[in-house]
Parts: sequence; C-alpha cells; structure tokens
Amino acid sequence: MDTRDYLNRKKDIVDKALDTLLPGEDEYPQTLHRAMRYSVFAGGKRIRPVLTMAAAEAVDGNGDDVIEVACAMELIHTYSLIHDDLPAMDDDEMRRGIPTCHKAFGEAPAILAGDALLTYAFELALKGSRKGEEGPAIRAVGEIARAAGSMGMVGGQIVDIESEGKAVDLAMLEFIHTHKTGALIRASVRSGAIIAGSDGEMLDSITRYGEAIGLAFQITDDILDVEGERDLIGKNTRGDEVRGKATYPAVLGLGESKRRAREWMDIAISALEGFDGKAEPLRCIARYVVERRW
Amino acid sequence: MDTRDYLNRKKDIVDKALDTLLPGEDEYPQTLHRAMRYSVFAGGKRIRPVLTMAAAEAVDGNGDDVIEVACAMELIHTYSLIHDDLPAMDDDEMRRGIPTCHKAFGEAPAILAGDALLTYAFELALKGSRKGEEGPAIRAVGEIARAAGSMGMVGGQIVDIESEGKAVDLAMLEFIHTHKTGALIRASVRSGAIIAGSDGEMLDSITRYGEAIGLAFQITDDILDVEGERDLIGKNTRGDEVRGKATYPAVLGLGESKRRAREWMDIAISALEGFDGKAEPLRCIARYVVERRW
Repeated sequence: MDTRDYLNRKKDIVDKALDTLLPGEDEYPQTLHRAMRYSVFAGGKRIRPVLTMAAAEAVDGNGDDVIEVACAMELIHTYSLIHDDLPAMDDDEMRRGIPTCHKAFGEAPAILAGDALLTYAFELALKGSRKGEEGPAIRAVGEIARAAGSMGMVGGQIVDIESEGKAVDLAMLEFIHTHKTGALIRASVRSGAIIAGSDGEMLDSITRYGEAIGLAFQITDDILDVEGERDLIGKNTRGDEVRGKATYPAVLGLGESKRRAREWMDIAISALEGFDGKAEPLRCIARYVVERRW
Repeated sequence: MDTRDYLNRKKDIVDKALDTLLPGEDEYPQTLHRAMRYSVFAGGKRIRPVLTMAAAEAVDGNGDDVIEVACAMELIHTYSLIHDDLPAMDDDEMRRGIPTCHKAFGEAPAILAGDALLTYAFELALKGSRKGEEGPAIRAVGEIARAAGSMGMVGGQIVDIESEGKAVDLAMLEFIHTHKTGALIRASVRSGAIIAGSDGEMLDSITRYGEAIGLAFQITDDILDVEGERDLIGKNTRGDEVRGKATYPAVLGLGESKRRAREWMDIAISALEGFDGKAEPLRCIARYVVERRW
C-alpha cells in the first residue's frame, strides 16, 4: 500500500472533522476560538489521530467510528505544544514555519487556548461514545487522561524542563520520552482499539506497537533536530542542542540513535505479527515514522 | 440545621478524599505533585465539591457516591486559580494568605501543575462512574468539560482579561461571571444530581438553583473585595479596583450589589420549593454564600 496516500487520506478526514467539531472563529469569545484554531490548523501531520483510526481498523473496527477520540488526541497534542512554547517553558517563537500561539495572540490567550483545547478534548472524546456502549468509552477516555497527566505527558514535560542543561543519562532520557511523547502515542492506538471493542492479547499487541513507535518517533525527532532541513521542519534546527536539551544524539551519538530508531520500528512491526492485512496501515506508519524527513 | 457544621463535615470528607486520590508528594515527578498538592491544600472552602454532594443528597442520592466527581470539581477550580494568578494573566503573588503557585514553585511548574490538575480531574470524574451505570457519568463529565471550556469558564476568563481597564456594562459583566464562575458552580450541582440519577423537572430545578447561587456567589465575592477584611480573605482587598476589573460594585454600586446578591439567594431557595428536607443543605448553602465574610 501507498503510505503517503493513506496518511493524506486520513489526514483529510481528520482535518475536516476538526474543522466541523471545533467552535468557529466567529463564535464568542472570538480571540479564544481564533487562537485555538490557529494552532490546531498550523500544519500538523495528524499522526496521533491517524494512529487512533488505524488501530481501530487493525482490530476489525471502523476508523470513522473513533473520529471524535482521534480528534481529541490531536487537540491534546496541540495544547501541549502551545504550553511548551510559552516563554516560561521552551520560549519558542516559531513552530511549523509560523509564529507560535503566544507570539501571534499574546501569552494570556495562548495559555487559555491551551486550557480550552485540553478541556474540549475530553468533551469531544466522550461525545464519541455510542449509547449502550459507554463502558469502553469511559475506559478509553480515562486512559487518555492518565496518559496526558502528571504520570504521563505533563510528567515528562516537567522532568524535561528540570533536566535542561544538566547531564542526562539514558534512563532519564527514556523516562522523559516515554512520558512526554510516548504516553500520548500509546494512548492514541489503545483508545482506538478499545473503543473498537478490542481487549486481551490483541490489545496487548497494539500496546507494544504503540510503545515501540512512540520511541521510534521521538528518537527520529531528535535526529531531525540535528540533521533535518530547516525549511521542512519549520523551525530552527539544532534548537535542542542550543538549549541543552536531553536528546538521543547527545547521549548516544547519531549513528547509534539511528540504529535504535530502526530497532524500535522493527519491534513495532513484529508486535503486529498475529494481525492480518487490516493492520497494514499500522505497519506502514511504523516505517514512515522513522523514514520521514520532518 | 447548623450550616457551618454541615460545611465543615463535608469539607473534611472532601479534604480526606483529595488527599487519598491525588498523587503523593514523593511520587515522581515530585516537583509537579508537590505544586499540585500545594495549591489544592492552600485552604479553599470546598464550596463546589460540597455542592456536588449536597445536590446528590437533595435528589435522594448518596453524597459519598459522587465523591470522585465532587473532587474533580475542586481540581478544576484549583487549576483555574493557578493559571489565573500567572504573571501573564492576573499576576497575583498571594492567595489565601500564602504565595501563589508560581511564586512558590516557578512559572513553568505552575503552568504544568494546572494542566495536570485539569487532566486528572477528568480521570477522576470518570473513575467515579459505576459499572453498568456509565450513561449518567458520561453525560455529567461531558457537561463538566463544556462548563470548564471555551464556552464556559475559560471563555469567561478571556473576556474578563480583555475587558480589563475598559468600560464594562451590566450585560458584559453578567457574561463574564455566568461563565467564569457560574458555569462551574452550575456543573457542580448538575453533575451531582445527574450521577445520583436525577432528570427532568427535578434536574431543571437544581439547575436554576445552581445558576442563581453562582451569581450570588460572584456578586458577594466582588463585594468582599471592596469591604472584606484582608486577614480573612488572605489577599489584598480592592485588587479588582486597582486592576480595573469589571465588578458589580463598580457597575451597580455597593448597595444595589448587595440587594442583587440577596435577590439571587432568594431565587436559589425558591427553585427548591418542591424539594423535601433532603434539600435543606442546599438552602443553607445559598444563605451562606451571601452571608459569608470570606
């Protein structure tokens, strides 16, 4: 199958759904809704929502049935970027080639836009539950909250900030990344599979897949920050180095980092051994995650 | 019944539950969990969770059965205070007699502590759903998210910030307060009643009660900012005036503001006319909201 074509098709579905589901720019209070939309439509790859849909399909469900939860994952991701970019955090002025939310709208609207996106993500994810089948939705959304919170993404973010400029070993680096990026990617595939009715061994395999591509994704991000092309990535490269950020190339070197990214990709694909052709998109995404150039 | 005694007993239950349910200070990452606990245990009145429990009891449910959702309301309230106090927002250094979260822990940990509290609120609220009765939980938590988001609390906050120093009329002032404070108070009573199985007319009455005490509460807050005692409130009084904040006393004068607070109190109590003695705590809270000195 053509990975780029699959990704583009799903990205289109996600973009259209986000546009329909988010409050309009003319809805009061407009500044807030404009700031929310500005960041959501700032050119993300939509990898998390696509994973949610692909995971639902891999366990014989329907991708469109999990669209609300899929969009919720993208909103949580977007809120985390807005808050990470704030002056008190990473202090980034550009992302994906355009000014960050607080540069475009001011700091208070950016904080509030992040807050509102996170909140709306939960409203949206719960909206996606079908009447009579609320059990899996509650389980999935509970897991998403856990993945996004102090034991997950936010936990990884604070350790990342606290370790800036300090010597970081591989154990600490893996903690940061399995939490800051990994937890949400894991929850993206798990929530899709859970809502599609998956459980037991099949769900375990999906989980191992999610954990492995989470690491492959983050290692590749770190590599692209060192050797990626500025125009493709839309922000200054080598930003991690300048900031004294904990990265795989800094700890392991570039060659070993690339080897590990491929190793995790292989682990992700192996996790899906028992799955049929419906899991092909997940396999292709695992390859794409490591081979992408931005 | 003795209102103060009821409030203290319920506050005790809420405080104990929050202590059990929140991640411990020694749980990694500690800075984050310490900052979360610091603000949650900074001396709030717990009026929202008490309302959730009292509303469940008023519709013949059990207050203890809604403890998770009740605690979730307090976490959402606490996160909103942490973010409101940030330098980019209200820039407050003291709250409830102690340094605000960002003064005590730094700005990045404060932003993240707020994010984590909001996220954990949803995890917690969903945890409270009983197996086989997930429908009401999904409905209640969805409503809480709506009340907390861009069409509710966060929406009120951005309009409040944008209107600072500008002339504000009564319509704008009521928009700010029904959203910034009112939406969450309304959701506090509604979520308790919904999870306790209430619907139809009874729920409508609870809703009218919640809307009315939300306004009574906010008008009283504004009045206390003008004539309250600094030691009781734990922050500088007249802060609203200095900051050019939209308040009831500024728009209507003190006398008319007091009259309106009592009027909303009466409306709240009238809304419960069809209820029996189990709604007595809600009636007492309505009086307390207007007669309190902090």
